[in-house]
Amino acid sequence: EIEMMKERFSKLLLGEDMSGSGKGVCTALAISNALTNLAASVFGELWRLEPLSHERKLLWQREMNWILSVCDHIVEFVPSFHSVTDGTSLEVMISRPRSDLHINLPALRKLDAMLLEALDSYKETDFWYVDQGVSVDISSKNQQQKSVATKREEDKWWLPVPKIPTGGLSEKSRKALQNQRDCTNQILKAAMAINEQVLSEMQVPDVYWDSLPKSARANLGDTIYYGLRQEHFSPDALLSSLDLSTEHSALEVANRIQSALHIWRKKESSGSHKEGKSKSNGSSRYSWLKVRDLVAECGDKRQLLIERADSLLLCLRQRFPGLPQTVLDVNKIQYNKDVGQAILESYSRVLESLAYSILSRIDDVLYIADMTKRNQDSSGSQLGSKTNAA
Amino acid sequence: EIEMMKERFSKLLLGEDMSGSGKGVCTALAISNALTNLAASVFGELWRLEPLSHERKLLWQREMNWILSVCDHIVEFVPSFHSVTDGTSLEVMISRPRSDLHINLPALRKLDAMLLEALDSYKETDFWYVDQGVSVDISSKNQQQKSVATKREEDKWWLPVPKIPTGGLSEKSRKALQNQRDCTNQILKAAMAINEQVLSEMQVPDVYWDSLPKSARANLGDTIYYGLRQEHFSPDALLSSLDLSTEHSALEVANRIQSALHIWRKKESSGSHKEGKSKSNGSSRYSWLKVRDLVAECGDKRQLLIERADSLLLCLRQRFPGLPQTVLDVNKIQYNKDVGQAILESYSRVLESLAYSILSRIDDVLYIADMTKRNQDSSGSQLGSKTNAA
Repeated sequence: EIEMMKERFSKLLLGEDMSGSGKGVCTALAISNALTNLAASVFGELWRLEPLSHERKLLWQREMNWILSVCDHIVEFVPSFHSVTDGTSLEVMISRPRSDLHINLPALRKLDAMLLEALDSYKETDFWYVDQGVSVDISSKNQQQKSVATKREEDKWWLPVPKIPTGGLSEKSRKALQNQRDCTNQILKAAMAINEQVLSEMQVPDVYWDSLPKSARANLGDTIYYGLRQEHFSPDALLSSLDLSTEHSALEVANRIQSALHIWRKKESSGSHKEGKSKSNGSSRYSWLKVRDLVAECGDKRQLLIERADSLLLCLRQRFPGLPQTVLDVNKIQYNKDVGQAILESYSRVLESLAYSILSRIDDVLYIADMTKRNQDSSGSQLGSKTNAA
Repeated sequence: EIEMMKERFSKLLLGEDMSGSGKGVCTALAISNALTNLAASVFGELWRLEPLSHERKLLWQREMNWILSVCDHIVEFVPSFHSVTDGTSLEVMISRPRSDLHINLPALRKLDAMLLEALDSYKETDFWYVDQGVSVDISSKNQQQKSVATKREEDKWWLPVPKIPTGGLSEKSRKALQNQRDCTNQILKAAMAINEQVLSEMQVPDVYWDSLPKSARANLGDTIYYGLRQEHFSPDALLSSLDLSTEHSALEVANRIQSALHIWRKKESSGSHKEGKSKSNGSSRYSWLKVRDLVAECGDKRQLLIERADSLLLCLRQRFPGLPQTVLDVNKIQYNKDVGQAILESYSRVLESLAYSILSRIDDVLYIADMTKRNQDSSGSQLGSKTNAA
């Protein structure tokens, strides 16, 4: 174990540059990548609802333990009052865990443990899995189930198909699954919230500012821009009018909204900066008042646009919970230098992705169960109507 | 041990910036500093010739083991021929340890082990140590020895004074000490050679180039400059004409020579660069020939100056083996990004310093032994002459 640990830390120290020449990535990115890769190799795409193998679980816990141990040494200094024997109190600086880590890391550990526990609960289940290639020719019954499954997972042909007993899922396991689903959904939301918060606190790198177009309006496109300016604004209605047929187009829209938001915010801050400047110059009071009104009007309008774009983006994210990272997020992660934020961001991201996978696999089973039940009901009612007709 | 290891690696990853914000030093410097500090806390200034305590030895070996483990993962890719079953051979790239590490690291480990072994050999010795403050009033005999010691170590009042039996050191332990001295001297030279080589291979950082004055001559001062230009140049004679009374002034001279060397070398390379350029431009052949002769003459003269300055610097270093780092060396270490070079440089530097300390402590004992012997001889001969006179 010591040898493995040395290897892990050595590679982090080298920043993925095995030549040792120090041209690798910084510690923050090295850790973020290591955590991402670890999660990918342990959880993969999570094809089935089943307990994680003992080896994978050990690997995950061991390596996470190493990676997270870096956080134990990230501290901040805060003033503290220290009372001395004669009754007076001295202000001294003491070190304590950095507050963002102190709050979020235990939460993430808890979510992590809950997800592994959730997977463990699928030791003995009512359902089982059959590889899609294998299931094709077994029976027409299977064939029927397969066609149902294929409809749902048409572009994920590599996923094994869940199978349930001919009589459908028992009420008990159905309830358990539904319970698990609600619980996992809560975990997903919690992980997303932490991830979003950390990302929002990360510095916007220069490379993103440099890449922003001049005009938010041109970048947004007319549909979104005029949508945001309408008197009665509804984010849902606006989203419905956009082409969000693929994940790719949804991501494109998210990128556009995000860059417009940053252009406006930048203007906002430079605008208030200018305003502050012109206040100190009282020579042409009249013209300044005019300018101020103009600026204020622009500012108010911009403020409104920012609020609306924010809510539009939120709405879009809720509609596409599995949306890939936007350009801004990718840039932030790529250029982030803060080790603590790197760990919080990557940890919450991989937990988010794990929770999302579990949720999807639960939905697969529930979907098949629903279909089976409906088929049975309809064939039952068909049988019933036939009997009636006879 | 695992917890300690995590702490060590975490701190290296954070680059000495405990806030985690990534504003710390790069891995290369973090490792270099860690190794330097470790050596300082384990060996300190080495006050006595005695075995290292078990705890310190363990600490040294354990932490060095961790730090050096990073080198296990520094590799280079080289082409290799791989013969396939049908007899043809394919060229494939294979990874192997980086050659500078592959050669120097085992050598340094060996020197390290030899130095610890040397210290271990002082388990039972003919001599012992007394704190200088304590020894003052014990006896006139001690007083005499003290005055001798004080002469030698006058500015190192904190060092304990070696004491030897009244009859002097036995011939056997004297020989053993002399042997040890020769051996340690060899180790010192080997460590110095590696350190010098690694430093010479390190990139000269921009900050050093920027700090160089325009004129090598003004920077060198007239004495050295004209000394280097004399028809019959002798580095030893030139050094003798300089003020090298203190370590500080010797270091100052080393800095001047080194910066002059770099100014000349820079001109040399930009000169040959210009020459290459003008060759391609054949329009004014005659004037170019003239310029070329001039350049060649300058170049030849500069080449001579470079060679002489090099030998002068070498001579100075040999005369002051314990000379502190020059500005160039400090800059190189400070801005070096190569993890492998950082480890080789700091490891060889601390071994060099340890060997130098052992050597000094051996010299202390031998000096006291010599003095005691001479005193005995002279009092013996005094006694003899008195007897004769009687």
